[in-house]
Amino acid sequence: MSLNVTIVGANGEAGLSIIDALSPSPNEFKLTAIVRPASINKPEIQQIKGKGVSVVPINLENNHDELVKALTGQDVVISCLVPFTTGPEIALANASKEAGIKRFLPSAFGPPCPPEGVMLLREFKETIINHVKKIYLPYTVVDVGMWYQVSLPSLPSGKIDYALKFPAAVVAEDGSHATSLTDLRDIGHYVAKIITDERTLNKHVFAYNEVWTQEEIHSHLEKVSGEKIPRNLMPAKDIEATIADAQIKYDASDKSLPFIFGLAGPQYLYCEWFRQDNLPGPAEYLGYLSSKDLYPDFEPIKYVEYVDEVMQGKGKSIYAGR
Amino acid sequence: MSLNVTIVGANGEAGLSIIDALSPSPNEFKLTAIVRPASINKPEIQQIKGKGVSVVPINLENNHDELVKALTGQDVVISCLVPFTTGPEIALANASKEAGIKRFLPSAFGPPCPPEGVMLLREFKETIINHVKKIYLPYTVVDVGMWYQVSLPSLPSGKIDYALKFPAAVVAEDGSHATSLTDLRDIGHYVAKIITDERTLNKHVFAYNEVWTQEEIHSHLEKVSGEKIPRNLMPAKDIEATIADAQIKYDASDKSLPFIFGLAGPQYLYCEWFRQDNLPGPAEYLGYLSSKDLYPDFEPIKYVEYVDEVMQGKGKSIYAGR
Repeated sequence: MSLNVTIVGANGEAGLSIIDALSPSPNEFKLTAIVRPASINKPEIQQIKGKGVSVVPINLENNHDELVKALTGQDVVISCLVPFTTGPEIALANASKEAGIKRFLPSAFGPPCPPEGVMLLREFKETIINHVKKIYLPYTVVDVGMWYQVSLPSLPSGKIDYALKFPAAVVAEDGSHATSLTDLRDIGHYVAKIITDERTLNKHVFAYNEVWTQEEIHSHLEKVSGEKIPRNLMPAKDIEATIADAQIKYDASDKSLPFIFGLAGPQYLYCEWFRQDNLPGPAEYLGYLSSKDLYPDFEPIKYVEYVDEVMQGKGKSIYAGR
Repeated sequence: MSLNVTIVGANGEAGLSIIDALSPSPNEFKLTAIVRPASINKPEIQQIKGKGVSVVPINLENNHDELVKALTGQDVVISCLVPFTTGPEIALANASKEAGIKRFLPSAFGPPCPPEGVMLLREFKETIINHVKKIYLPYTVVDVGMWYQVSLPSLPSGKIDYALKFPAAVVAEDGSHATSLTDLRDIGHYVAKIITDERTLNKHVFAYNEVWTQEEIHSHLEKVSGEKIPRNLMPAKDIEATIADAQIKYDASDKSLPFIFGLAGPQYLYCEWFRQDNLPGPAEYLGYLSSKDLYPDFEPIKYVEYVDEVMQGKGKSIYAGR
């Protein structure tokens, strides 16, 4: 019995990772991507079609009946929508409930984080998760920690800048803080396991590859590059002041994207490197199951392999061309 | 090794149940009650002292250092504060964290319920739970469903009105809906088990005695009383209209107690009898461990025994004299 899986936001990084992992197994997963009618002719959508994915153009909001019809017969709905708003995903959840979807994956795929008071984007995600719970839609929240692809600092030579859309620019405190890292390409492999696993139904899952400190990352990159990387150390009070300032600006703003990014950027840094929410212990406290317990035999891409690829010019910048 | 347990809001119904269950075992539990200095001479506080509980008069808010000092050396802090505000309990959580408390029980002791969009009082409780998670304070949320003591309707003869502070006045839909019921006196026994159980750390626990439909409750009371009880059936749309109206009034209000009660009353009814959130299945979906799985040998007070007591004039009204 194959699983009918619909992905929304399929042309984002997490969505593409999931399609790349699921599409080679057409007997196991029948994939559909719901895309905005306005996006239907974009090259990345054509690329998704080329991978055997059925593409269905539908607007999510104010379109309940058509959406229910499109989702009827689907088993799993995966949202990879950007977490800058809640309306479209709540509409998707409501239609999924009415269509009798067996499992809904709200857009997560980031660091585990307490639900309130740490990251604005987490609060948007929690609003959606809370709505899912209110309507008793079967769900799984999948968080994956920090992506390898946003973890490296630049080299003084500029040699790896081609692969770093968001180079890591500061070091938290003295560099000894740790975070959990996952290769973007593994997200899809984790999702393939999780959506066929009854143990993860109505649970949070923390799927991560490895734990590294910032100093370890810098030292390793120095070793393989032969370059000396300056440490731009930042004490917690500085990032806290930056966040407080961004919060004031956000609160007084129209809540448009520049203000969201202005607040979300330092909050991510604070969560992942300063507070260290993005670690197995905190994730367990927050109620997450661990991929290490669930899938002990899975061998994800090693961080040192990823760094080697980047050094060899084979890395890939995320959000390329966007 | 005895456990040092501090209870805040000890003179409420849940607090008294906990003291009554824990105080007979002074070798296992050393009890302290934190009370407002203004309440120190109230008869119910004197009564608590008579049960061997140390009473410490401290204000919770704007009193961090003194509170930390009072909590230092305590193992468990149990909040039974009324859930009409969040400030005092958040102050208690912060002080508990700094004092190194091993387990914090936020005030819950009600029905399992989705975190958002169903009950205002649940949202107040979730704000506190979210704060607890933000500061990584070890916790257990204990919900107990509907108390036996608020489950019975009046009899036409008025014979059991002495025991019914809040008689059940309406029947949801056709009476076939079910809810989970727990005797107030058992709350303390569940808490005694839960706070000495590592399996419940950083979890939600649903501790309940029995599941009854409203029709079953009415039929049973008719049988033991020999009286015919009219069914005041209410369709869902009526309670939804009442809640919508109360919500408008609450939103436009100063959020004072009458407006909170005006909204919380019908919301409780809606949650517990119409939506049927207060059942083992929904609780499991919402992430609760079940007392039936954790403590299969525990024999709580039977609902029919409680009804017999009430019929025999041995019932006790809750919030008596307040």
